[in-house]
Amino acid sequence: MAKEPKLSLIPLGGLGEIGKNMMAVRLGENILIIDCGLMFPEEEMLGIDIVIPDITYLLDNRESVLGIVLTHGHEDHIGALPYVLRHLNVPVYGTKLTLGLLQGKLKEQNVLGEALLHTVKPRDIVQIGPFKVEFIRVSHSIPDAIAVALHTPMGVVFHTGDFKFDLTPVDGQVTDFHRLAQLGEKGVLVLLSDSTNAEKPGYTMSERVVGNTFDENFRQATERIIITTFASNVHRLQQAIQTAEKHGRKVAVVGRSMVNVITVANELGYMDIPDGLLIDLDEANKMPRNKIVILTTGSQGEPMSALTRMAFSDHRQVDIMPGDTIIISATPIPGNEKLVARIIDQLFKQGARVIYETASEIHVSGHPNQEELKLMLNLVRPKFFVPVHGEYRMLIKHAELAKDVGIQPENIFVAENGQVLEFSRRSGRMTGRVTAGRVLVDGLGVGDVGSIVLKDRKLLSQDGILIVVLTIDHATGEVVAGPDIVSRGFVYVRESEQLLEEAKARVKSALEKCSEKGVSEWSSIKSQVRDALSKFLYEKTRRRPMVLPIIMEI
Amino acid sequence: MAKEPKLSLIPLGGLGEIGKNMMAVRLGENILIIDCGLMFPEEEMLGIDIVIPDITYLLDNRESVLGIVLTHGHEDHIGALPYVLRHLNVPVYGTKLTLGLLQGKLKEQNVLGEALLHTVKPRDIVQIGPFKVEFIRVSHSIPDAIAVALHTPMGVVFHTGDFKFDLTPVDGQVTDFHRLAQLGEKGVLVLLSDSTNAEKPGYTMSERVVGNTFDENFRQATERIIITTFASNVHRLQQAIQTAEKHGRKVAVVGRSMVNVITVANELGYMDIPDGLLIDLDEANKMPRNKIVILTTGSQGEPMSALTRMAFSDHRQVDIMPGDTIIISATPIPGNEKLVARIIDQLFKQGARVIYETASEIHVSGHPNQEELKLMLNLVRPKFFVPVHGEYRMLIKHAELAKDVGIQPENIFVAENGQVLEFSRRSGRMTGRVTAGRVLVDGLGVGDVGSIVLKDRKLLSQDGILIVVLTIDHATGEVVAGPDIVSRGFVYVRESEQLLEEAKARVKSALEKCSEKGVSEWSSIKSQVRDALSKFLYEKTRRRPMVLPIIMEI
Repeated sequence: MAKEPKLSLIPLGGLGEIGKNMMAVRLGENILIIDCGLMFPEEEMLGIDIVIPDITYLLDNRESVLGIVLTHGHEDHIGALPYVLRHLNVPVYGTKLTLGLLQGKLKEQNVLGEALLHTVKPRDIVQIGPFKVEFIRVSHSIPDAIAVALHTPMGVVFHTGDFKFDLTPVDGQVTDFHRLAQLGEKGVLVLLSDSTNAEKPGYTMSERVVGNTFDENFRQATERIIITTFASNVHRLQQAIQTAEKHGRKVAVVGRSMVNVITVANELGYMDIPDGLLIDLDEANKMPRNKIVILTTGSQGEPMSALTRMAFSDHRQVDIMPGDTIIISATPIPGNEKLVARIIDQLFKQGARVIYETASEIHVSGHPNQEELKLMLNLVRPKFFVPVHGEYRMLIKHAELAKDVGIQPENIFVAENGQVLEFSRRSGRMTGRVTAGRVLVDGLGVGDVGSIVLKDRKLLSQDGILIVVLTIDHATGEVVAGPDIVSRGFVYVRESEQLLEEAKARVKSALEKCSEKGVSEWSSIKSQVRDALSKFLYEKTRRRPMVLPIIMEI
Repeated sequence: MAKEPKLSLIPLGGLGEIGKNMMAVRLGENILIIDCGLMFPEEEMLGIDIVIPDITYLLDNRESVLGIVLTHGHEDHIGALPYVLRHLNVPVYGTKLTLGLLQGKLKEQNVLGEALLHTVKPRDIVQIGPFKVEFIRVSHSIPDAIAVALHTPMGVVFHTGDFKFDLTPVDGQVTDFHRLAQLGEKGVLVLLSDSTNAEKPGYTMSERVVGNTFDENFRQATERIIITTFASNVHRLQQAIQTAEKHGRKVAVVGRSMVNVITVANELGYMDIPDGLLIDLDEANKMPRNKIVILTTGSQGEPMSALTRMAFSDHRQVDIMPGDTIIISATPIPGNEKLVARIIDQLFKQGARVIYETASEIHVSGHPNQEELKLMLNLVRPKFFVPVHGEYRMLIKHAELAKDVGIQPENIFVAENGQVLEFSRRSGRMTGRVTAGRVLVDGLGVGDVGSIVLKDRKLLSQDGILIVVLTIDHATGEVVAGPDIVSRGFVYVRESEQLLEEAKARVKSALEKCSEKGVSEWSSIKSQVRDALSKFLYEKTRRRPMVLPIIMEI
């Protein structure tokens, strides 16, 4: 009997963090990837646009990579593909809506032409190299989401993707409980499951709850209604549209990403929009205010979004008026709480009635709470369990739930990105590590902003910069121009002329000391100037601006 | 009959924001101030340490200001005093613990010697100019908190300060329901009431609940216990100490502010600490781990705090060990969520058992929820109502609660800082506005960082800075040195030499164009260089660093 190939799971993103989900599954010399997402930058990543997974490991093994399987169309599952495909152009597998949304992104980044996209549907089984890949329907906050079962010689590797057990989904497409049960009955080797809500007790409410809240609020609204939600939440948009029709209102959509999602979802048959219901904003502005619903982006309080501009009377076509009902059908992503709160305050100041989460059932999560996680564990009954998609404490909580359900503690692996997990039919263990991490994207630069640049940005952001320039005659060593001091972000110059004059005097005396001591190396002069000035400024102001001496030579 | 003096309320802080609470009450030519707090900086106030109220109005009326009454010892009620007393040294009235905590702060800032501090106690009535000022006990997350009733010829102005209705307070000092009821029975003109939790339904749980959670967790702990909470929460600290004693553990306190609060509260009789229970950290480190509790600062994940350093193995005396129980007995202040989450993750990685809010009853608020707010409104039965202490949406919610309770809608005033409210016995109205706002404190500078400096810091933080220096011969107009380009926070120089070389070439060609066209004004040359370089960099990188040309002359 031939020796069995090794089966390894190699998480490249999404463990110990929310976002940039990416899992490599290796069977002998063959690698299949599940998802390829981006993450939004953490607060300390100043000026960074997005963060993508480090794929060094895949590039080092590029001959082995067979393809990328996508579980659904959210940014944290597909958003890194435009960058990754540029360096690793392998076939991509996903459902119709997922690939529909992906195509828009690939087109924007000019990589669509090269891409090899394969459409799959739930219960399909596709052979990719040695992997028999099965797709299984799950509910989530976007239609056409799937879980993935990889049938391998050692057993089934089951990856849930993102999911929830919505028993009354808006599109009627319930999670495929029956196939989950069949797989569990036959036996699953490893389960990888979504940990986003592992800290939250109970069940996530059905998406349909939000439809009821819409209905109530539409009934009470006497003027215009403005609804904001995540652009990709097709079910939510569908419910808003249905409720508008029911109450005899027309709908105008504002915001590029929302227009895009509705267009794609509608074209591919994932939405049901009555003819003539959608109108454009100019038309809406001519109609009675109680006949209008505006659907808009900006649910996270993004400073440039349509809703923010409306709130601050800065939108070309929409002014908030007293009596308008604004429905914020989203929860702030951690870090955005204050941005969203500011928009709500501003909308209230404009006299609007604002319906938002703290006060009402206006948003539900797309992820499973603890009871659903336990149900998934019970259905699939895996031998080994790896919690994925979550910050470390969420993985820990999910692991505890798995213990409660009866998984052997030694068969539960709380891993980090880059940690290799190896499985045979009977045993699992953490083995080595591969390169994994974060690649920062800033403008067109991918990976060119590292810790030194970020440290400088942090410094600059706290107390600004003082630049000291002087010109030295290279023959005599004499200062022939300057020192001049220019500051930015330190103090408002007009109010601090005296301070800057004194600072200049300190620089001069530092230069004199250098000349007395015969110090002529530029680097020494610079560091003397920097130290003298930093010390003086700290004494006078208790601030530590960056001090940057520049010496020119003629 | 003499004409009645005018009664006005002039909010100088705490309306439309959380923090820097300050309310001026004017009766004819006399002004009394309630509280004088600071606020922590908003995210966009880069590099700012604290924010205090703008007291221009008080300085313009300094002869009228009779004194400052403090409701309790939290930073957002007393923290601006060291700055304000320097410019306006008026008598300060407060309870024993409030003044005890204040003294420490005044001493630190060298203003204690001058301060005129008057100790008051609940049910005291003090005549301050024309104001008969009465102090009324309330429960809060710090002992010795009071509400203030000002008896004026037009009626009673009742300011709740911060409060909750804790029916089983740790120190047994229940809110003075009876005096509230008497005042309500006699008739109150205006109520000003705490809106912090106006969005939250139900009742705030009693502080005692946390004691029970401590007890449960102590029972389960097999190794060391580390507890962090707000340094000023004396009741919480008392409960931790009692629970430690009950379970036969000694207590070591870490963190300057917590040591300070415990010292002051203990000296003044607000804590009950058994002899020999407190030990120092060195001693604790020699004892069995299951006999130790460490009380520490850092409940907000502050980067320099003791707990953060412990979590990242950076604390001189305390290493987290597997099996340690860490109790985070606090909720993150909005904006600190991610900092706190990171510490929790790190503690789990060290193998600790972490008890934190999402998962357990380990913290309760010090502020009243909706039912308590309605109870206060019912007890006091004011003619007019002004919600205070809260962001705008919280004030709006509180106003809605007041309507539900039966206050006439036209008698409810949702105001902003600086808005003057004028009252007679029968009527109330918003009249003019006075100067009010935020003064930013950065190091020793108070008010010297304004919007231009903050805008520069923001710009610098996003894409860094490029400095272009050159020296020009003033006689010939020729460039004799440079252009040199220095960048910080833009790109890592070693990886972008070519980009910076090209940039230099662009600067040269811009300079040549200037010279061809006979442009010789420095400001024009600078702006040509800036524009050419900005455009080039945006094309190449899609970033917009600050570009700063500096021209020297010999």
